[in-house]
Amino acid sequence: MSHSVLEAIYTRRSIREFTNESVTLADLQEIIKAGIWAPSGLNNQPWRFAIVTDEEVRAKLSETTHYSRIVLGAPALIAVYLDREAMYDDVKDHQATGACIENMLLATEALGLGAVWLGQILKNKDKVNEILGLSSQYDLMAVLAIGHPQHRRQKSSRKGLDIFILKTFLQEGSDVFQK
Amino acid sequence: MSHSVLEAIYTRRSIREFTNESVTLADLQEIIKAGIWAPSGLNNQPWRFAIVTDEEVRAKLSETTHYSRIVLGAPALIAVYLDREAMYDDVKDHQATGACIENMLLATEALGLGAVWLGQILKNKDKVNEILGLSSQYDLMAVLAIGHPQHRRQKSSRKGLDIFILKTFLQEGSDVFQK
Repeated sequence: MSHSVLEAIYTRRSIREFTNESVTLADLQEIIKAGIWAPSGLNNQPWRFAIVTDEEVRAKLSETTHYSRIVLGAPALIAVYLDREAMYDDVKDHQATGACIENMLLATEALGLGAVWLGQILKNKDKVNEILGLSSQYDLMAVLAIGHPQHRRQKSSRKGLDIFILKTFLQEGSDVFQK
Repeated sequence: MSHSVLEAIYTRRSIREFTNESVTLADLQEIIKAGIWAPSGLNNQPWRFAIVTDEEVRAKLSETTHYSRIVLGAPALIAVYLDREAMYDDVKDHQATGACIENMLLATEALGLGAVWLGQILKNKDKVNEILGLSSQYDLMAVLAIGHPQHRRQKSSRKGLDIFILKTFLQEGSDVFQK
């Protein structure tokens, strides 16, 4: 198991171009199931979701973001929400949503699909709620565009590990230096 | 690959009781590497980390949280930070941190280790920064306690999927209903 989980984490890429093939409801439900198995503070499970494959609804949603081409081109969308009535701490609930979305992205690839995490659409979150018929109790956190990848040529990069590690306090005489 | 990634997501549990065996620096670096391969808005990679295996530093940190027994009992800690100078949007940067931490938790299990995500310690984040010698440029997001699990008997639960799915807009005539 170990190797493939790390491999999945390192090889996952944002997919923005999809074939016309539709995504099954079973797969979308599996992706959401992976999301809800993320940890949350006090296990409050504050996340909520809306599934959209309907073309007319996707067309309306596409008008709420700069990335309309992606929204229109993706056969499936999952809008990720926080339920304000289930929240207990803004920072921790936003973190939990991030953990949930990462699980969803990893699950998407595990199912042979591809996805991209759309955040710019949050600028019009009231409009998105209006289109989806959701009250302000639900705070839009992201939209995932999901489909069958046209290709997997996407590149990504990260800075070197050393830049991110601010401090290291190692136990003297431990075998911490050895693998 | 697919099955094991979903399995990892569904079987991961918070580990709070560890053996005395130390954790190698190589494993801690691998866990952080998995973290930084999470997605972030504009790929700003705002996360930073401090590694602590030193017993004296762990003892000091244990005094900053209700969960001192976990902090003392874990052979390794990774404090996860946001670099305020690298941030661009509070909500999205907090989400990115959550995605990063979820990768770290999955990587920990993939390496045969266990971890728990500690959030209560944020109440004393200034004190934690003082102990670690970090300025207020770095905003503590979580501490992960990491080690070799004493056991893997932990249970967890989630509400039913239906509770989380607020709306479904399905394309008529598509094969979305079929697996």
